[in-house]
Formats: sequence, structure tokens, C-alpha cells
Amino acid sequence: MKAISILGSTGSIGTQSLDVIQKYPSKFKITGLTANSNIALLKKQIAKFKPKAVALMDEKSANQLQKVVKIKVYSGLDGVIKVACLKETDTVINSVVGSIGVVPTMAAIKAKKNIALANKETLVTAGDIVMKEVKKNKVILMPIDSEHSAIFQCLNGENIKKVRRIIITASGGPFKNHTKKQMEKVQLKDALKHPTWTMGAKITIDSATLMNKGFEVIEAHHLYDMPYEKIDVVVHPQSIIHSLVEFEDRSVMAQLGNPNMKIPIQYALSYPERYPTDIKILNLADITNLTFFKPNLELFPCLKYAFYAGKIGGTLPAVVNAANEIAVSYFLQNKIKYLDIAKTIYTMMKKHKLIKNPTLEQILKVDKEVKQKTKLLIEKLTN
Amino acid sequence: MKAISILGSTGSIGTQSLDVIQKYPSKFKITGLTANSNIALLKKQIAKFKPKAVALMDEKSANQLQKVVKIKVYSGLDGVIKVACLKETDTVINSVVGSIGVVPTMAAIKAKKNIALANKETLVTAGDIVMKEVKKNKVILMPIDSEHSAIFQCLNGENIKKVRRIIITASGGPFKNHTKKQMEKVQLKDALKHPTWTMGAKITIDSATLMNKGFEVIEAHHLYDMPYEKIDVVVHPQSIIHSLVEFEDRSVMAQLGNPNMKIPIQYALSYPERYPTDIKILNLADITNLTFFKPNLELFPCLKYAFYAGKIGGTLPAVVNAANEIAVSYFLQNKIKYLDIAKTIYTMMKKHKLIKNPTLEQILKVDKEVKQKTKLLIEKLTN
Repeated sequence: MKAISILGSTGSIGTQSLDVIQKYPSKFKITGLTANSNIALLKKQIAKFKPKAVALMDEKSANQLQKVVKIKVYSGLDGVIKVACLKETDTVINSVVGSIGVVPTMAAIKAKKNIALANKETLVTAGDIVMKEVKKNKVILMPIDSEHSAIFQCLNGENIKKVRRIIITASGGPFKNHTKKQMEKVQLKDALKHPTWTMGAKITIDSATLMNKGFEVIEAHHLYDMPYEKIDVVVHPQSIIHSLVEFEDRSVMAQLGNPNMKIPIQYALSYPERYPTDIKILNLADITNLTFFKPNLELFPCLKYAFYAGKIGGTLPAVVNAANEIAVSYFLQNKIKYLDIAKTIYTMMKKHKLIKNPTLEQILKVDKEVKQKTKLLIEKLTN
Repeated sequence: MKAISILGSTGSIGTQSLDVIQKYPSKFKITGLTANSNIALLKKQIAKFKPKAVALMDEKSANQLQKVVKIKVYSGLDGVIKVACLKETDTVINSVVGSIGVVPTMAAIKAKKNIALANKETLVTAGDIVMKEVKKNKVILMPIDSEHSAIFQCLNGENIKKVRRIIITASGGPFKNHTKKQMEKVQLKDALKHPTWTMGAKITIDSATLMNKGFEVIEAHHLYDMPYEKIDVVVHPQSIIHSLVEFEDRSVMAQLGNPNMKIPIQYALSYPERYPTDIKILNLADITNLTFFKPNLELFPCLKYAFYAGKIGGTLPAVVNAANEIAVSYFLQNKIKYLDIAKTIYTMMKKHKLIKNPTLEQILKVDKEVKQKTKLLIEKLTN
């Protein structure tokens, strides 16, 4: 029986994780839940899953909830860490959104918890530090992400030293066939229409710019200790092949499925076993056609920036992530144009003074500073 | 170091196996070779690979060769068995063509040799008996076949009990888009044009009728102890995805590669390791398009017959195989029409008196009898 704390239980991955968990009460139980401020949903989850403790990032909401539930309600980032490190918990699902997610990941690893990781920023901003800690504490870090779960499954029973190339597939987002001219006219509502996956707003924009794919490249580098030269991206609009691994003998393994996050969520929890799901069966004869093409790095510079930042390493991936987070938030408020996202990131990358081997504290400091500076930059340009 | 006897070393799989073996002299060595009657090529192979002994099915050729080489030259089926069971040999590649191949396979298994199996008839005609012997003698039977090698690779590190479905891909052969009318007009030269694989004449015709795929279904049933209800066939004209395995969680693993038999040959010898090859790298972005559709069982009745024969079991698969072998040989001589192949098989299946749990001797007797009767039937119809 796995005893699980979910960080971010009221979000998209969090609620889908609970769906998976409630199907297998003999395999999984919930020991902790955390959210930002969604008291109404968290209350329902507490009633249903009976955790030992919960936390809310928002202190006011935490106080409010504590009045109506009998279990302990922690608050703030420290509260989230407490729930991640509960002695009853052995596995932490981290589906926190944003760079703050790295802090509870690190705390949980140090407390010898296994990690099922949906928070991208953990590895994008602090991959070296996090993976070192994973090895030191001999815990398992499983990706909750269709691409990295696919790569993990392709490596099952294989010798990772025999890998020639990891090929990450990208849906290409809504603008995959756009010309440069069309890119200039992109509106927020267009960018929010993801062709194959239903996700949160931030990650939907990141998918449209291919920044999300760039982050996945950096994550793959850390998860599988793979040099960037061995990581490729191919656009595959149907999102049926979730990623591939090419071995030295030129044999290529792939993992496929209808696009549904429940497969990677459940796999991260069930591994090395597999449990039945009721997800729609993949019928290739119904799909009829799988297509592939190279991503255009000129039209999708964010992918290029992420590759570059990954290769340089140090604090640069944190800079890209922070600048992107702010730029996307402004774009989501319709305050900047689509193309300004990439431009903003580029400016912030150029301005940055690299720290080659940063501590976690330095990374968090850079994250904070770059976010502030990016805000200032955008405010200056748009006023 | 693997010490290998190749049965059928002058054929297509045999020569490709030697290509693989000579690339890794520190991993593989040749202890035995056998052929039908191709003295000229076998002599060259002896000079190059220095086996301990060889055999030729044809006695006259064997005597002729013995005069010019210093090593022992055996003859006939007994000679092939002797080479398969050499005390110096630990692995036997069986790429003999035809139902006779099952005899040295069985002998080698009983002599505790691991088997790399390209001879389809071994499992098609006597799968139950062969797999029982494999288990009893605790040897490894590896498939040399792009489809079964793909399935094997998809099962790497997985629990076979969690398999929901095996999906075997078929190129569909040259007539995949033919109408019933067009089928009636098929000529031998059309049937010999395989779109993606270069193979011998017999197997090229079997690919055109989808009988080859039917045999692979029966082989998969035995190799992976999989009920026929869990085996599907999908037509995939590009032959890039070599087969797939669907698990209970609806996750699907696939093995891909440019069509080249050297991958499954080498994998059968290198497993669980992988060695580099110089085969063309798979670039999905260059291929651009993978397509899939359901096979039409009315236009490709051979596939239906194989499924049916597999499910009934006993001697029926041997009947289908024997009738097919003769019908195809007549078609290759331009003596019967393309559609007569399936008709002949159907007639022979209907006539057969099933033996439910046959011995190997009974299977071989049925094989011989059905071949004779099929010849008589065809001669009667065409005269």
C-alpha cells in the first residue's frame, strides 16, 4: 500500500491523481493534501480521502478551513513541506505549479520520500541539485508527464548506456503550421486552443510556444542523465506516440496511447506494476494516420532558448523559466503580444550574469529577481 | 562468446546472420554451418568462419565438398542435426526454409542449445510441442523476425500477464489496396514485388496473401503464450512500426526501425545486450507519415484461415502450412492463379481429419500427406 501526499491536489493533475487513487483503495491511500486556496474542493477531498493533514499556501484560507475540519491544517510553504514530509507518507505527488515547487520536492527527497513529479520547474531550474539528492537518498523519482513517462517505459529492462538518442514528441500546438506573418497576428484565444491535450492555461501557452517542449528537453537531460546532443524533438500533431528512445543497434522503442494524463499518473504510482484503466483503447486503424515533422526553431525560438539554456546550465534555465512565467502571465492578461513572450525571454537571458554551480538558494534568488526584472521590463515597454 | 551453428547459412537470413557475426568477433564465433546444396558459397563461408563441421542436405553435394575441405562434412537431415547439436555449439540459428526445419530445432533444444528461430514452420506446425520442450530444457528461444522481435522488445522489463493485446503490423503486401476484381487478375510478377522488404520468393508470396501474417499470429500465440483473442493484426504499409503490445493500463509499447532484418538477427544474438549497427537511422521527420488500416479478411482469406487453424490447433496449422507451401510453389511456377492459393488451402483444411494432440511424428506425417494430396489436387484441377 502506497501512502501518498499530493501537493496541489485541487489542480488538474491533482484531481486526476485522486481519480486514479480512488480506483485502487487496496493499493493507494492518501495521507496528505495541499492546495493554494481552493477551500471548497479541498474540504470535499478531505471528507472523501481522509488525509492525516493538509496545507493551504494561503494563510487566511488555512485558518478558515481549520475551523471546519478536525485534522491539522498547515499553512504557507512550510505547511506544504510539512505535508510532503509527513511520517505516514512514503510517496509525494508534486503537482504544484511554478518554481516554488522545487522547495517541497527537495524537502521530500531529504525525508526519503519517493517522488512522482509533475512540477516541471523542479528539474528545469534545479535539475543537477535535485538529481544529486535523489541518488544520495536512494529514492525513486518518477515523472508524471506523458513524454517522460513514455521515455521511462521505453527504457524498461534496457541498459541506458546503450541509448543513442531520446526523441521527444511535440504536438506542435495550435501554430505548428503558421507562417511568420500569421505568428505576428496570434491572439490569446488562439493560443489557448490546444489541439490534443486539455491542460491549465499556463502550460497551454507554453505548448503553443514550444517552451513546454524545451522544458521537457531539460527535464529529460536530468531524469535520464542524457547529454543534450542525444535529445531530439519531433513534431507529431496527433499526440499518439508520446516519445521514443533509439538504441545503439538502431532499434527504436516508443510508447503510445490516446492522450490521457491518467496513464502517466497511474504508471508513476503503480511502477513496476501496471493496473487496468478504463481509458479509451488505442486503435491505430481508427486513427489511420500519424504524421511527423521537424520543429521550426526560427518560428519557435523558445525551444531553441531552452536547449541553449540547458547546455549552458547553471542558473540560465532558471532565468528562462522565470522570464517565461512572467511573460506568459502578461500574455494571459492580454497585456503583451504572443511574439513578445520569446522576445522578453531573450532579453532576460542576455542580461543575466551566469552562476555556474549555484546552490538551491541562489537559484531561488535568481528566480525571484528575474521575475521582478521581467515585470519591470514589460511594464516599461507597455506603458 | 557465443558459439553458433547456422542451419541454412547460404540463404537470405543465413548470410545476413554471418554479416552480423563477423562484425563482432569477440562476441560471436561460428561452430557449424549447413546448407541445401550451395557448395560454392558454403566453401567460402568455411574458409572465412572456420566452423568445426558443416552439413549439406544433398548427399551428392556433401560428398563433393568433403573432397575439398578438411573439416567434417555431414549430409542429409541427420547431418544437419549433428551440426545443430555439436558439443562446441551453444546457440543455433535456424533459418532452414520449410516444415523440415522443426526437426533440427527439436533436436537442438533437447541438446540444451539456445535457439534463434527464423524457421516459421517450427512454431506454426508444432508450437505446443516445441515450447514445452523449450521450458523442459530451460533454453532460450529468440525470434528472428521483425514482428516477434518487436514484441519481445516491447515485453522487456514488463510482466507478460499484464498484456491486454499484441498488435502485429503487416505491410499489407503489394495488393493491400486491391479490389476483388483486381485480385482476380493478379500475376506472379506483381505478387513478387514486395513494397518494403527484400525476401525470398516463397515468403514474398506469403506476404502478398497475408498468409505470412497468419503464420506470425500462430507463432506469437506460442512464443508469448497469448490466446488468439488477444492477438490483432493491423496493416501498416510503411513497415516502420514492427509490432506493438498493449498493456492493461492501455499504455502501448512499440518497436520501430527502418526495415532491415539485421536488427532482429543481431538482437536475437546479443540479447539482453544491444550492440551498435550501421543500419540507417530512423528519422520520423523524413518519413513524415505512418498509416494504418484494418486487414480485409474477405480479400485476404489466408489470414482468416491461419487464425482459425491456430484456434482449432492440433494438426490443422500443419495442414494450412503444407497446403500453402505446395500451392505457392505451383503459383511460383505460374501453374495456378493467385486466388487458387487460398482456395487450395481451404479445400485441404475441409478434408483434414483433425488430430487434437499430435506427436511430432504425427505432425510430420500430416505435413507429408497433405503436401502429396495438395499436389494431386492441383494436378487434377490444372490438367
